[in-house]
Amino acid sequence: MVVVMKSEATAAEIAAVINKAEAVGVSTHPIYGKEHTVVALIGDLTKIERSVFNAMAGVQKTVRIQEPYKLAAHDTHPGDTTINVGGVVFGGPDVVVMAGPCSVESREQILETAWAVKEAGATVLRGGAFKPRTSPYSFQGMGEKGLKLLAEAREQTGLPVITEVMTVETVPLICEYADILQIGARNMQNYGLLQAVGKVQKPVMLKRGISGEIKELLMCAEYILSNGNMQVMLCERGIRTYETATRNTFDLNAVPVLQHMSHLPIVADPSHGTGAWELVGPMARAAVAAGADALIIEVHPNPDNALSDGAQSLKPERFAALMGQLRLIANAVGRSIATCPHAAAQNGRVREALLA
Amino acid sequence: MVVVMKSEATAAEIAAVINKAEAVGVSTHPIYGKEHTVVALIGDLTKIERSVFNAMAGVQKTVRIQEPYKLAAHDTHPGDTTINVGGVVFGGPDVVVMAGPCSVESREQILETAWAVKEAGATVLRGGAFKPRTSPYSFQGMGEKGLKLLAEAREQTGLPVITEVMTVETVPLICEYADILQIGARNMQNYGLLQAVGKVQKPVMLKRGISGEIKELLMCAEYILSNGNMQVMLCERGIRTYETATRNTFDLNAVPVLQHMSHLPIVADPSHGTGAWELVGPMARAAVAAGADALIIEVHPNPDNALSDGAQSLKPERFAALMGQLRLIANAVGRSIATCPHAAAQNGRVREALLA
Amino acid sequence: MVVVMKSEATAAEIAAVINKAEAVGVSTHPIYGKEHTVVALIGDLTKIERSVFNAMAGVQKTVRIQEPYKLAAHDTHPGDTTINVGGVVFGGPDVVVMAGPCSVESREQILETAWAVKEAGATVLRGGAFKPRTSPYSFQGMGEKGLKLLAEAREQTGLPVITEVMTVETVPLICEYADILQIGARNMQNYGLLQAVGKVQKPVMLKRGISGEIKELLMCAEYILSNGNMQVMLCERGIRTYETATRNTFDLNAVPVLQHMSHLPIVADPSHGTGAWELVGPMARAAVAAGADALIIEVHPNPDNALSDGAQSLKPERFAALMGQLRLIANAVGRSIATCPHAAAQNGRVREALLA
Amino acid sequence: MVVVMKSEATAAEIAAVINKAEAVGVSTHPIYGKEHTVVALIGDLTKIERSVFNAMAGVQKTVRIQEPYKLAAHDTHPGDTTINVGGVVFGGPDVVVMAGPCSVESREQILETAWAVKEAGATVLRGGAFKPRTSPYSFQGMGEKGLKLLAEAREQTGLPVITEVMTVETVPLICEYADILQIGARNMQNYGLLQAVGKVQKPVMLKRGISGEIKELLMCAEYILSNGNMQVMLCERGIRTYETATRNTFDLNAVPVLQHMSHLPIVADPSHGTGAWELVGPMARAAVAAGADALIIEVHPNPDNALSDGAQSLKPERFAALMGQLRLIANAVGRSIATCPHAAAQNGRVREALLA
Repeated sequence: MVVVMKSEATAAEIAAVINKAEAVGVSTHPIYGKEHTVVALIGDLTKIERSVFNAMAGVQKTVRIQEPYKLAAHDTHPGDTTINVGGVVFGGPDVVVMAGPCSVESREQILETAWAVKEAGATVLRGGAFKPRTSPYSFQGMGEKGLKLLAEAREQTGLPVITEVMTVETVPLICEYADILQIGARNMQNYGLLQAVGKVQKPVMLKRGISGEIKELLMCAEYILSNGNMQVMLCERGIRTYETATRNTFDLNAVPVLQHMSHLPIVADPSHGTGAWELVGPMARAAVAAGADALIIEVHPNPDNALSDGAQSLKPERFAALMGQLRLIANAVGRSIATCPHAAAQNGRVREALLA
Repeated sequence: MVVVMKSEATAAEIAAVINKAEAVGVSTHPIYGKEHTVVALIGDLTKIERSVFNAMAGVQKTVRIQEPYKLAAHDTHPGDTTINVGGVVFGGPDVVVMAGPCSVESREQILETAWAVKEAGATVLRGGAFKPRTSPYSFQGMGEKGLKLLAEAREQTGLPVITEVMTVETVPLICEYADILQIGARNMQNYGLLQAVGKVQKPVMLKRGISGEIKELLMCAEYILSNGNMQVMLCERGIRTYETATRNTFDLNAVPVLQHMSHLPIVADPSHGTGAWELVGPMARAAVAAGADALIIEVHPNPDNALSDGAQSLKPERFAALMGQLRLIANAVGRSIATCPHAAAQNGRVREALLA
Repeated sequence: MVVVMKSEATAAEIAAVINKAEAVGVSTHPIYGKEHTVVALIGDLTKIERSVFNAMAGVQKTVRIQEPYKLAAHDTHPGDTTINVGGVVFGGPDVVVMAGPCSVESREQILETAWAVKEAGATVLRGGAFKPRTSPYSFQGMGEKGLKLLAEAREQTGLPVITEVMTVETVPLICEYADILQIGARNMQNYGLLQAVGKVQKPVMLKRGISGEIKELLMCAEYILSNGNMQVMLCERGIRTYETATRNTFDLNAVPVLQHMSHLPIVADPSHGTGAWELVGPMARAAVAAGADALIIEVHPNPDNALSDGAQSLKPERFAALMGQLRLIANAVGRSIATCPHAAAQNGRVREALLA
Repeated sequence: MVVVMKSEATAAEIAAVINKAEAVGVSTHPIYGKEHTVVALIGDLTKIERSVFNAMAGVQKTVRIQEPYKLAAHDTHPGDTTINVGGVVFGGPDVVVMAGPCSVESREQILETAWAVKEAGATVLRGGAFKPRTSPYSFQGMGEKGLKLLAEAREQTGLPVITEVMTVETVPLICEYADILQIGARNMQNYGLLQAVGKVQKPVMLKRGISGEIKELLMCAEYILSNGNMQVMLCERGIRTYETATRNTFDLNAVPVLQHMSHLPIVADPSHGTGAWELVGPMARAAVAAGADALIIEVHPNPDNALSDGAQSLKPERFAALMGQLRLIANAVGRSIATCPHAAAQNGRVREALLA
């Protein structure tokens, strides 16, 4: 950290800064410039509050040299983290595609969608049972009944399941059913929830908040990692800017930036990122070209009647066509789209019978 | 709601929109323009998902005419809501000033600050016992011990206490000690928490999220109100923009905008809003001039050693000087600064003795 | 400036940074930390491009310690700048109020408005003759004819005139008629125009761009100042954020921030800042409470028929009422609203006759 | 347009809105809802100012149904516009790559770069001779001397040249030398300049302003188109958001969004978009995958010594490697990278001799 003193700072004020730092075992290095004095602090700064120095007399500002996250940072971790979910590997050479409806709405809807996305080549099934909704008067999800339907879809298709967890109290329940826990954008900084999922041994996909800075996302991952759960993946899903032509501004730059900064697998969510199904195809292709390790895409058999997020959901046939394009893009960047490790799961089953 | 069809929409697509609306008892009013057809929907739309229409074939966009919050809206509520906290009235003619440290750090610190802000004229004591911190390695608050110290400060000074509640599990605990529950900016859309505080009968101060739209803030208030707790006040505390000269962009416009839209009392937090103590004075004065019903201001006896938010805390003597200025501004807009209803609370006590 | 090296930077890369800085006469001060080396640069850095260092091998980032504007900065200028426009003083103890229509639309409209704002207590007349409009199909202003009408209004009322200059070619023309040149938000970084108004000796009011950072605004002022024109005032007029409840987010924080950073007078424009006449009153009062040196407010005798910006214009009677409130707020912060230095200008004239 | 009345609007206020619209030949369609009345306006609205209606008594807001640009819109133009620059076609099946240094710095630099980018496969040369710089103390470009060097590079390599025009006065000069005129982000809304380039018959590349909305970009294109110049291409180059991990937020979503809205060719500038050379490769690949018609990329033989934008410039060898990747991505989306139509230009020349 560098403490920049005001041009009118007194020798006593400079000395106070030096003393405060050295009192906690940090060594200091004052540099007397023509107009400003700056004091560089060297040593273990994790216990130092920057705001303490900002509040001191004569201080103009402080500048962070090193970010305070450790476990999420690339430097301190040799190589990239891979996360294996029932044979599907995130963060390895293959690009994983997760797909499914925004919300579980009925047995028929989730089973039909699960089979459709599996046939198109997805290897993880997404679906919400507990839904955070802007209005208290909107559909709030099917709850545990939705979880049971997801489990049934997994049993039939062999696809592992990712679903959102919204509250500390429901972590154990969700863990019974889900293969990957999703922390939604609104809860990126719900620290109680982050600590709770940090204490279970399930992979977690942490979504960037709608106004989350990239370094804040890493600090939130740090909350999970520092509680002992090392299976964290990060998801870009669109940020809030002044532009209203898209529902959010899908910040694809986050993909290569996060890969420079962290060893954790990076997921892109072009459905929430853009909010419009016409944009999902181009931005999904772009995400693979930019290096994303996984995609999560909303698919609904009948978007016109979806209880949530219909406008950004692909129909199964459009999703299948997109998968073909994604394979070509993945090849162009030297990767493949991950394929299903449990081919057996679908053999010997008659899909139509199961849907009956 | 108005559904705008694409210029190339077919008669069948227009009919589908009409049918879907009428199927849920909403009457429709199609208007055939030169280049676009629009369909106006009239009736009770609270159950309608806009996204359903956005997802339909031939639809270009939907436009909301009426906002979906009801209980928070001005139209449906005659006059303004006032909230009485032990004789201190929010939303009435007087402007309430709440003050105190960011975090409770020690018995001496909170008692000294409580007496200092009371003597300067504040009528509510603020102080955090459970702290949401960006880094898992930072000071996380004193917890229940901090709550007990706040209660002791209240007993001594007679000042009601406002403190933050972060998790559903701690709502009952905080309710034992606090007079006003604070929902922090990071939790504005933590719907489980909003529902929980909606079920208790304590006043709640709901802070706008760092990227919360004003209408989202009202929707979040609706979550509390619709659960039965009608004592909600709204707090502007700075939003995230591209500007970095201030820690946040304190959006004072929200004060008159919210007063047009809602009957709930409006609080301004210039300390978090700006993040720098030099700006707290000008922006506190501005907030009263703009019509805020209450202010919440961070005061610390020794900001250089504060465990959090030192840079934005006022020293007690600066706070006292500011209170004098605020009285003049309040008078200039035809109001007064609220005074302490429990003068007795301090009579017959020797402050020095109590601090011993 | 501080150059932060990557943790894996080699000794040769560090030496290259040092050599490059010393080659242009800047002395260097390397500090070898546990994980990072940083190199502090001391001396005259105005000729150094930060991006040169950012581009060097082994460099992680550079951090600016001192801002590159000099003439606009408070440090290098003893006391505050005052600008005297025909006896009306900006930046002194009194708060100047400028008012008038968005656009000059007709002789009757501008004369009626000029007299109305003068009678209410404004001391400068605003009015646009050349208008930057988002659509090429919108009214683009009356041009030179509008300037002549402004001059006639000045002659009648004695009020100095502020009007916008949009292009280099029209600077001489505008200078013939205007007392203060306005650079609009869209042209904040039109460097050719800034240089052109820097070469004339007329006061300039420079508006912050809709996404202008405060330090960029000061750099743009520097373009004018460094060309020789020292009579520059800075105007906050709302920035673009994600919030759509107001047309722009009027960033009142800029007023005290700019007063800390610069000696130039600060103007607040609550009309463009908020975009809604109902908000102009509260935010104008707030601006005076926050310390603005001047206000610029849109007034139109008949906003329903204004050719531009009707929605944010006050009717004359509302403006007059607001002036009364502003006097009270100004007194509450130890200032007054500036009064007309040319009382003679209106004596002996019969307003009705002139309007005939 | 739809005019939404306040719930308390009177019959007279509703009638006034209807009368005002019908007075200019627009037909009206009032709809009396349970809580609000809305008035739909049908007909030619290009002459109507929305703000006039916003300003009327009883009006809550107005909602635009149709955007006010016509010439730039997809609806009114059959098929996509292609622009042919000396045989290089923008907006056709092939993806055009433009490359070169930020600024022309010397004869050697520009010739070396021109040959390098040509050999790697670029078909247009970029280079700035007049540079908009944030600081008045920074290098401002070589001016006409730079233009002559660009012309020499074109003569040698056969590559057409794109360069920025900053002021109305220099339009004729730039037209003498350039094949494509570039309007920079800071000048997106410099309407005088847009009109000036609208009156010449040279292709124009219009960059999105740093806070330009997509629909504003189209309105600015409309300024050029409506002056008679139909050869306009639109360039996404990063917008300003709260995120600081990248210099700007490269908004790749703009590519498919603009392709839905407009028939004009779309260019992506990942160099300015991200501000960091490490991100240029991933985001250039992503841009082609998302459907961009052209890329513009900064290449410098020695970024460490560039006079501007070194940090975001690729070295020639990195650029050559990227071109190989871009060919693969282009093929994956069914396109090719455009190749040089003037193969003859380089035949029979000895590059080394020319550089001597």
